[in-house]
Amino acid sequence: MTGPRPPRTTGMSYSKPRPFARVRRLKDRGAYDAETIYSIFDAATHCHVAHLIDNRPVAMPTLHWRRGDRLYWHGSTASRMINANRAGGEVCVTATLIDGFVLARCGFNHSVNYRSAMCFGVAEEIDDPAAKGAALEHFMEHWFPGRWPTLRPPTRKELAATSVMSLAITEASAKLREGGPHDATSDLSWPVWAGVIPLTVRAGTPITAEDYAGDAKAPAITRLRRKSGA
Amino acid sequence: MTGPRPPRTTGMSYSKPRPFARVRRLKDRGAYDAETIYSIFDAATHCHVAHLIDNRPVAMPTLHWRRGDRLYWHGSTASRMINANRAGGEVCVTATLIDGFVLARCGFNHSVNYRSAMCFGVAEEIDDPAAKGAALEHFMEHWFPGRWPTLRPPTRKELAATSVMSLAITEASAKLREGGPHDATSDLSWPVWAGVIPLTVRAGTPITAEDYAGDAKAPAITRLRRKSGA
Repeated sequence: MTGPRPPRTTGMSYSKPRPFARVRRLKDRGAYDAETIYSIFDAATHCHVAHLIDNRPVAMPTLHWRRGDRLYWHGSTASRMINANRAGGEVCVTATLIDGFVLARCGFNHSVNYRSAMCFGVAEEIDDPAAKGAALEHFMEHWFPGRWPTLRPPTRKELAATSVMSLAITEASAKLREGGPHDATSDLSWPVWAGVIPLTVRAGTPITAEDYAGDAKAPAITRLRRKSGA
Repeated sequence: MTGPRPPRTTGMSYSKPRPFARVRRLKDRGAYDAETIYSIFDAATHCHVAHLIDNRPVAMPTLHWRRGDRLYWHGSTASRMINANRAGGEVCVTATLIDGFVLARCGFNHSVNYRSAMCFGVAEEIDDPAAKGAALEHFMEHWFPGRWPTLRPPTRKELAATSVMSLAITEASAKLREGGPHDATSDLSWPVWAGVIPLTVRAGTPITAEDYAGDAKAPAITRLRRKSGA
């Protein structure tokens, strides 16, 4: 196990994020390269969209997907979140993976290993039905490649009832921690176990719907396997 | 598998949440009883705190814990989140568990099984060092019962560098989905697998710190096992 991962410098880099998006605390845990930010958004099952409703901040969970340099999420055209997003206020989309509990010799040095990505900006709605259908296909393909063409195609009514929001990944940052605990030398002999307990999100045995009479198998979720260690 | 779980009515109930906290969409998925709300906050490894920084909404991930009818989270006294929280603005603390992907015969009926709890209000800082120490002990005990007394005790400096925020769970709500897909009868014969792929957060094999020379075992994380099915 090594110390905190240094920010990667490979890939496209957001060289000058606006000051607001800069990681302030523990700067060695901050990263601004697209590869890191994309990989976190891609690995997370869901995000939280912070937005204002009645001028109060709300963190709403939703599923997201990424294509190229944009994030997407969807919802009912009747949802308060979608209506707030479409009204044009600033949002903050955060996706977080907790990779492990880090246990040290004192409470203060306990930590978690994690990967978190944040993206700020004003979301745009995708109005064009064809573009909206394509975006929803990308969502399905993100988790279940090849499934979309096998489904009963969307109806005009279904597409009309669904809003798709899109946010450019321009003002964005990531924060990560990995590796073991960092205890003071004077604490190392304290007689308590220290180390990392990894946490992972795993797919369990599929539960076939009671009203399914076919013999197809459930699709595998390979995306969850592509994660870094603890 | 059954349909969406009806809101539980056992336990203490928040009978009259202010209108803002009411679940608007898919009301049969909403729940306001304390037992449900507490159980979601207790099971989630982390939350996202929505708050305003420079008048912009930010969703910041952090670890939380609950004791009685209050939520707690902590951070460095230097953190922007803590300073924004302590300034007294409204926050929204949301914890979300994704329990499974729900695969239907059409894209529109795809869903996820989830448990999400939200709590609104103005957080208070715990200033008293003894109360702060007790709160941090509760945090440790939440995940690792019995560990706190075995640790090197916190120093005055460490306590001074740590801020603990507390939020009453009064204006709160939960939203849940469980069970299989709900397809239209006319879609049931569509030749594609339908059902649920459960997702769980699991603790992996502990990784002992390289600088640990003892022979103690890593603590087990029993709390993660106490979860409902998909």
